[in-house]
Amino acid sequence: MKKKGSLFVVCGPSGVGKGTVCKELLRVRPEIKLSISATTRERRKGEIDGVNYYFLKRNKFEQMIENDEFLEYAKVYDNLYGTPKKYVLEELNKGNDIILEIDPQGAMQIKEKFSDGIFVFLLPPSMEVLRNRIIERGRDSKENIKKRLKCAYEEFDFIREYDYYIINDDLSGAVNSLIAIIEAEGCRVKGDVLEIIRKYKEEI
Amino acid sequence: MKKKGSLFVVCGPSGVGKGTVCKELLRVRPEIKLSISATTRERRKGEIDGVNYYFLKRNKFEQMIENDEFLEYAKVYDNLYGTPKKYVLEELNKGNDIILEIDPQGAMQIKEKFSDGIFVFLLPPSMEVLRNRIIERGRDSKENIKKRLKCAYEEFDFIREYDYYIINDDLSGAVNSLIAIIEAEGCRVKGDVLEIIRKYKEEI
Repeated sequence: MKKKGSLFVVCGPSGVGKGTVCKELLRVRPEIKLSISATTRERRKGEIDGVNYYFLKRNKFEQMIENDEFLEYAKVYDNLYGTPKKYVLEELNKGNDIILEIDPQGAMQIKEKFSDGIFVFLLPPSMEVLRNRIIERGRDSKENIKKRLKCAYEEFDFIREYDYYIINDDLSGAVNSLIAIIEAEGCRVKGDVLEIIRKYKEEI
Repeated sequence: MKKKGSLFVVCGPSGVGKGTVCKELLRVRPEIKLSISATTRERRKGEIDGVNYYFLKRNKFEQMIENDEFLEYAKVYDNLYGTPKKYVLEELNKGNDIILEIDPQGAMQIKEKFSDGIFVFLLPPSMEVLRNRIIERGRDSKENIKKRLKCAYEEFDFIREYDYYIINDDLSGAVNSLIAIIEAEGCRVKGDVLEIIRKYKEEI
C-alpha cells in the first residue's frame, strides 16, 4: 500500500542556510518534491516561471487570496509572496513527500492551516557563526545585520512550535539529519498502518 | 551541550525478527546500548551473566519487584523475567540511546511507567511470511503456531499505542529505518534545545 506523503516545512533565521540545505537534499533525494512559491515581483534574468517561482500578476494573486488558495502568503516591501495549496496537496495525495523552505512567520501561518505538516527549525552552530554568514553574504548594511540578528532571537522563542531542530554546522550532517527525519516520519503510526493490518486480517 | 538519550522499545509479534533486527542495529551502531533483562530461569550453557541476562535468585527478583526496580516484569511458565530500571536510567542520563527488545505485553507495561520512551512496532511483510518464519524456526508445534498467529492479530490491535512501525521485509531496510528513527528522535524539540537557545542569548 502506498503511504501518503508528508509536508516538511524547513525554517530558520535569515542566514542559517535553509536554501543550501534544501538544495542539497533535493540533489541527493530527487524523489522529494519542492514546493514552489508564487510571487508578484518581476521575473529576474535567468529565473524560470514554475521553477524558481510562479510569477503572477497582482490581480491573479489577489484573486487566489480571496479563494483561499494559499497555505500562507505575505507582503514583502511592495510584492506578494505565497505558497499555493494546489501543488502541495496534489503531491501529498500522490504519496510524495514535499519540502517547503520558508521564513518563520510563514511557517507559523502554515501550521495554523495545515497542522499535519512536519516543522523543522534550522539553528546556527552559534550566533557568532550566524553573524559571520550574514556578513559574508555581503547583501546587508550594518544596520540590517543587526536587525536580522535581533529577528533571529525573536524567532528562537517560537522553537517549541516545531517538531524537530537541526544544528547546521556542516552541510552533509544537516542534510543527513533531515533525511533521517523524513524517513522516520514515513514510519510514523497513522491511518495507513491500520489499512495494512486490515489487509493482514483478511489473510486469515 | 550533550543531549539526553532516549529509550527505544522495539516490539512485535513472535517470529517477526525483533532479535535479528536489534542485533544488526547494535553491530552497525555500537554506540547504542542494549537493555539487558533479568531472569530467574537457569543459566544455559554458553550464556553469560550480565550479557545475555542478569541471572537472579528468585528471592532477589521478588525483592526488586517489591522495591519497584523494574520497568516491567512478567511470569513466563514458572520463571520471572523483567527489565531493571537502573541500567536504563543510568545510560539515558549519560546521554546514551538505549534499545530494549520486548514482547508487546511488556512494551505496554513500560509505556505506563515511562511515557518518554519511543515505541517501535515491527510488522511482518504479510501473515503468510510470519507463519513461514515461525514454522522455519522449528520450535513450535502446529497448535503453538496457531496460538502465536492468533496472538499476533491481538497485538496488532494495539498498534495505535506505538510511535512508529517498520515492515521487516528485509533486514538492512528494517535496520536503516530504525536508525533513521533514532537519529530523528535525537533532533526532536524538547528541553535540551531551550538550553541551546539560552546559550545563544548569552552571546549577545
